Amino acid sequence: MQSIEPQKQLLAYIERVVALNDVEVQLFLSKTQIEHFEAKSFLLKAGKVCRTQYFIVKGCIRTYYVDENAVEHIVQFGMENWWAADLQSFITQQPANFNLQALEPTAVLALSHQDLQGLFEEIPKLERLFRIIIQNAYVSAQQRIVENISATAEARYESFLQRYPGLDQRVPQYMIAGYIGVTPQFFSKMKSGMLKQL
Amino acid sequence: MQSIEPQKQLLAYIERVVALNDVEVQLFLSKTQIEHFEAKSFLLKAGKVCRTQYFIVKGCIRTYYVDENAVEHIVQFGMENWWAADLQSFITQQPANFNLQALEPTAVLALSHQDLQGLFEEIPKLERLFRIIIQNAYVSAQQRIVENISATAEARYESFLQRYPGLDQRVPQYMIAGYIGVTPQFFSKMKSGMLKQL
Repeated sequence: MQSIEPQKQLLAYIERVVALNDVEVQLFLSKTQIEHFEAKSFLLKAGKVCRTQYFIVKGCIRTYYVDENAVEHIVQFGMENWWAADLQSFITQQPANFNLQALEPTAVLALSHQDLQGLFEEIPKLERLFRIIIQNAYVSAQQRIVENISATAEARYESFLQRYPGLDQRVPQYMIAGYIGVTPQFFSKMKSGMLKQL
Repeated sequence: MQSIEPQKQLLAYIERVVALNDVEVQLFLSKTQIEHFEAKSFLLKAGKVCRTQYFIVKGCIRTYYVDENAVEHIVQFGMENWWAADLQSFITQQPANFNLQALEPTAVLALSHQDLQGLFEEIPKLERLFRIIIQNAYVSAQQRIVENISATAEARYESFLQRYPGLDQRVPQYMIAGYIGVTPQFFSKMKSGMLKQL
């Protein structure tokens, strides 16, 4: 079965947080669907309702927002073992503000809003799993707020490297520059300055 | 009993999310302690471990961060029916980065880390409650990230007013200016400009 390896990866991830029995594992996995996205294709476009949460098995994505001047702002990246969604849209089932775009050929396990609500009823332990997933995402978002208002560009880059190990070799430099809030020119200068100090 | 009214307020808040039976209500409330903080006193200081989550019954607080140049940055405010903690410190039981300071005489219901872990075991429905609380906090934090990187100061102020109804009349203007990331002088000019447009 094509989906066995991705599902093993998801299970290994889950088991670090909660212990599910065999019946629960089967039920949970039966609701997940493997999906493949080509590089540059969209998992979600702003304006559509986010009906699915994605567990990234392989590949990477960016979550970005286009402001009224048509400028793109990267809210976050996602890579192996991260979850991806426009959570506000997913919770409220209202149109999304964010775009989710694959940056590499990307494989995900998809879990629909409807199925997840049912799973919460049938496997209450999943409440804990998703509480902890969201808790970690929240702490990470708060760190980013603090960095945006108080850290230097170099510190924001260090934080990017820590948060997304290896991703600096996988996504275009201008996107990393955008994520940390500097121009590509400044980013390039800053990086060579940092290298010289090593 | 002094704590009856605050506890009713907490219960009304909880019941909007999950239904607890009488035994669960009694158990949950038995773990909460009413605490009072004078204006300017601290619920938590950076460097200490955050051992408590606070449900704000009355009053308001700010969560702020002091950078290496001794500049204060307001991460968020809290007011009636908000929860307050340095969540990263609370989760990891490592020293906090944030200070939590009362801006008015403030009454809270305090719930210790240890008691909350026990409650999660005894009342699994609380996992759902805290999943939803944190989910909302996460969406709000993501909005703030987007605003910080893309919105005008005026839009950030509108968002502050929406997020914290009435709080603009309760906290010093320079703190609101800091929260939205402008100088007090600019903030004052911007507000009079906005008033003229009404």
